[in-house]
Amino acid sequence: MQQQFSSTLLENAVNEFAKLPGIGRKTALRLVLHLLKQPEEDVELFGNTCIQLRRDIRYCKVCHNISDTEVCHICANPGRDRETVCVVENVKDVMSVENTQQYRGLYHVLGGVISPMDGVGPKDLEIESLVERVSREHVKEVILALSTTMEGDTTNFYIFRKLAPLNIRITTIARGVAIGDELEYADEITLGRSILNRVDFTSSFKQ
Amino acid sequence: MQQQFSSTLLENAVNEFAKLPGIGRKTALRLVLHLLKQPEEDVELFGNTCIQLRRDIRYCKVCHNISDTEVCHICANPGRDRETVCVVENVKDVMSVENTQQYRGLYHVLGGVISPMDGVGPKDLEIESLVERVSREHVKEVILALSTTMEGDTTNFYIFRKLAPLNIRITTIARGVAIGDELEYADEITLGRSILNRVDFTSSFKQ
Repeated sequence: MQQQFSSTLLENAVNEFAKLPGIGRKTALRLVLHLLKQPEEDVELFGNTCIQLRRDIRYCKVCHNISDTEVCHICANPGRDRETVCVVENVKDVMSVENTQQYRGLYHVLGGVISPMDGVGPKDLEIESLVERVSREHVKEVILALSTTMEGDTTNFYIFRKLAPLNIRITTIARGVAIGDELEYADEITLGRSILNRVDFTSSFKQ
Repeated sequence: MQQQFSSTLLENAVNEFAKLPGIGRKTALRLVLHLLKQPEEDVELFGNTCIQLRRDIRYCKVCHNISDTEVCHICANPGRDRETVCVVENVKDVMSVENTQQYRGLYHVLGGVISPMDGVGPKDLEIESLVERVSREHVKEVILALSTTMEGDTTNFYIFRKLAPLNIRITTIARGVAIGDELEYADEITLGRSILNRVDFTSSFKQ
């Protein structure tokens, strides 16, 4: 039911919040009433931080990750392994891989996956720049770390075909039963693939 | 786990969103990445709407409801019954009662309930102004519509004592088994009270 607002300012703010994904009108109202109780400086900081983010954000010209500078701090870090590039869908995936602290190479953010249903073709993604980058720089391995959806697999295969002539190693992250999971609850495809792609017992301890 | 951000702008925005009630860091990141995908004007509108709301919001000087003007549109409406005042805790409760479209009187927003545990005493609420308003204007009935918590009951009783000498009708909203609920699942106190406060069958159809 449409709520009655006693104030246009309030109504506008609720409308703005309700545009955010996963925020309904009730939650929007709760958030707005919370903001109203905060000191004016805090709300100004909140609003200006959003505006500044959108206005000043840049994307690394090498890997297309979010960055404050022209080249992101991962690409600019001389300590990273420059011969390995991990291809991911989006900025969140870079964070997920970084949080594992197991990867010392560089990234390449595609900006999505090929999805004809959503009107996303190879030209809408950073695939051309990946191929160009791999052929220009001394990249020895490209790790494909996309979702295991139909779209992810399509994109993987498209990239694989594009990179195949360059004679580099192309790998994909291991899929298998997650650590801590019980076999009983693993789906057949995951369990089947984890049996096919089994690894030597001793190598499973490698960090 | 603390996430690694590749951008200070992004981190600041996530921190700001994570301050909102019920928004964790993961949700905050999701919302911020959503904002990043929106046109710059839209994000500016979002930020400025929040700032403007906090800066320009006013509270009705009569009933303390949120308002764009000195006197809110409910208090200023000559069609409303000026002899009945419904006392509620907050702005949200005004909306809830308005949404029923069953009430044509005025409101008085207390701004909370008496809660010694949270350090909220009668002086922190708009109780004095209620008493003053009732004695000054021709109010014939005050409806107490506070929560049925210990604090709500305490506040009800405090207001009741303050208003008792003014010789007006003081009522409270009916508590009982909600429409559509089954008796089996109603709690004993609610069901007990709804039996004690039973109404004539014919009057239960009145709108």
